[in-house]
Amino acid sequence: MSQQHKKSVKVFAPATVANVACGFDIIGLALDGVGDEMELRLGDTPGVRITAIEGADLPLEAAQNVAGVALLAMLQEYGQPETGIEVVIRKRIQPGSGIGSSAASAAGAVAGANILLGNHFSPEELVPFAMEGERLACGTPHADNVAPAIMGGFTLVRSYQPLDVIRLHTPADLWVTVIHPQIEVKTSDARGILKQQVLLKDAIRQWGNVGALVAGLYREDYQLISRSLEDVIVEPIRAILIPAFYDLKLRCREAGALGGGISGSGPSVFMLSKGEENARNVAAMMEQIYAPLGVDYKIYVSRISTSGVKEM
Amino acid sequence: MSQQHKKSVKVFAPATVANVACGFDIIGLALDGVGDEMELRLGDTPGVRITAIEGADLPLEAAQNVAGVALLAMLQEYGQPETGIEVVIRKRIQPGSGIGSSAASAAGAVAGANILLGNHFSPEELVPFAMEGERLACGTPHADNVAPAIMGGFTLVRSYQPLDVIRLHTPADLWVTVIHPQIEVKTSDARGILKQQVLLKDAIRQWGNVGALVAGLYREDYQLISRSLEDVIVEPIRAILIPAFYDLKLRCREAGALGGGISGSGPSVFMLSKGEENARNVAAMMEQIYAPLGVDYKIYVSRISTSGVKEM
Repeated sequence: MSQQHKKSVKVFAPATVANVACGFDIIGLALDGVGDEMELRLGDTPGVRITAIEGADLPLEAAQNVAGVALLAMLQEYGQPETGIEVVIRKRIQPGSGIGSSAASAAGAVAGANILLGNHFSPEELVPFAMEGERLACGTPHADNVAPAIMGGFTLVRSYQPLDVIRLHTPADLWVTVIHPQIEVKTSDARGILKQQVLLKDAIRQWGNVGALVAGLYREDYQLISRSLEDVIVEPIRAILIPAFYDLKLRCREAGALGGGISGSGPSVFMLSKGEENARNVAAMMEQIYAPLGVDYKIYVSRISTSGVKEM
Repeated sequence: MSQQHKKSVKVFAPATVANVACGFDIIGLALDGVGDEMELRLGDTPGVRITAIEGADLPLEAAQNVAGVALLAMLQEYGQPETGIEVVIRKRIQPGSGIGSSAASAAGAVAGANILLGNHFSPEELVPFAMEGERLACGTPHADNVAPAIMGGFTLVRSYQPLDVIRLHTPADLWVTVIHPQIEVKTSDARGILKQQVLLKDAIRQWGNVGALVAGLYREDYQLISRSLEDVIVEPIRAILIPAFYDLKLRCREAGALGGGISGSGPSVFMLSKGEENARNVAAMMEQIYAPLGVDYKIYVSRISTSGVKEM
């Protein structure tokens, strides 16, 4: 264990889509071209120091920052009290966008620091540390954004007790188009309107789609993926939070999308497509629908990242 | 279409396990060594004639017989009114066992007749005809036994409207052990005790397991399959119908099973294992538990069939 590790590292931490249609609370995916940038270095002072945050007004104090608490959890497990980590965060993902802003910071922090520690932890082992960032951000230590942010591609959270996160196969030609309407949807509100009970017949339809979506990913069967991108449980309730949601969904499918839904708890909406051309046509359609609405928006087109957090 | 087809055919129609743990109502599998035998021939008289049934006391009249109604539905779609099919059924699967007795007859009938018709229909197209047999048998035209009986291996029913049945990958070394306690569990009773509503958090856990089970099958990851074989929705309610169910489940896992659950709506219980030796150890454990209970039982050990109905 005396080998020399890097003293500093620069990483890209991807934006992510959680709640992939039928896969509410379990299936997420990582974007390739959209994400935060972070610099981490081993410091002389023990503990975690966030030295700068660009692009967002977020607390520098480690215990109040999602990247900070994730690193603190990691260092506690690492168990070498003299270790010091310094972090610079360049936020490119807007907080509250629904594409995993807090998850990117938490995932980038622990995956970056892990490089400095000579990959002491496996990607799976990093997930619980990053989940502490989510606990700080929204009160629940959920994994459906941090898992794809760390592991890349599509991920599935089978269980929380014990934590069991699985990397799914990701078809090479699958692209994502995301529109982020610049409105506020509070995660707590989006959760609050859900019903605690659902109809068994709806639940069965949902798990039929989940099974088929996973099979579609492994078979690289884009039509099966398309048919499975259906959410009969959560989307019908949350759709009211998103301007023009059903219009968007219908016309994006007509424009070539395989399907999609609400990203995380919104307000972003994602669409999957086969190939870049379709994904760009879908982006144009999103623009056409949103331009007259008088709501500001951003649109992203990206391949699905197969690597998760990566060195720059 | 003037090619000569076979005038008669002898087929093996496999027993099946529906409701594979978390995959309630959607995931089924076909057994290799347990099933009905059927003989079908093109007859001179138009329509469907069941000429003999061995091994069970079932109606010969086509419209009252699951194989008969399945064939009638098929011939109606085939659209050549002069076609006549004669059937001999040798029941090897006991009706009411919970391993797809009616499904085997219906599936064997249509898949066998399809050979006589020069494979006019695809396996997927045969499923709705066989479902008519299930409608006669239990009032609901469900597909989760007939789909694996026709298509082989593991199958997933994604949707009924429209019908969308998917053949899943089946790991080569996966075996099934089934115990059939000779008690009566009426499908209608087993359905009647289910709740129409379920907790969202339980439904999420279930679809996490469904996604993971499908991933486990494609990855041939036996440990992932094992962890995913959990049913938090239906099993806790139906377990009371099966003598010594929880004891069986726990001790079969200890004896080497990956996991299992109630087969169909019971009373049979299935366990999956990696390899024949484990499957036989599980059978011995089932015997050890059931022998002192004073309930008659049959135990089957079988590879998972990858072919469904096949010519003998």
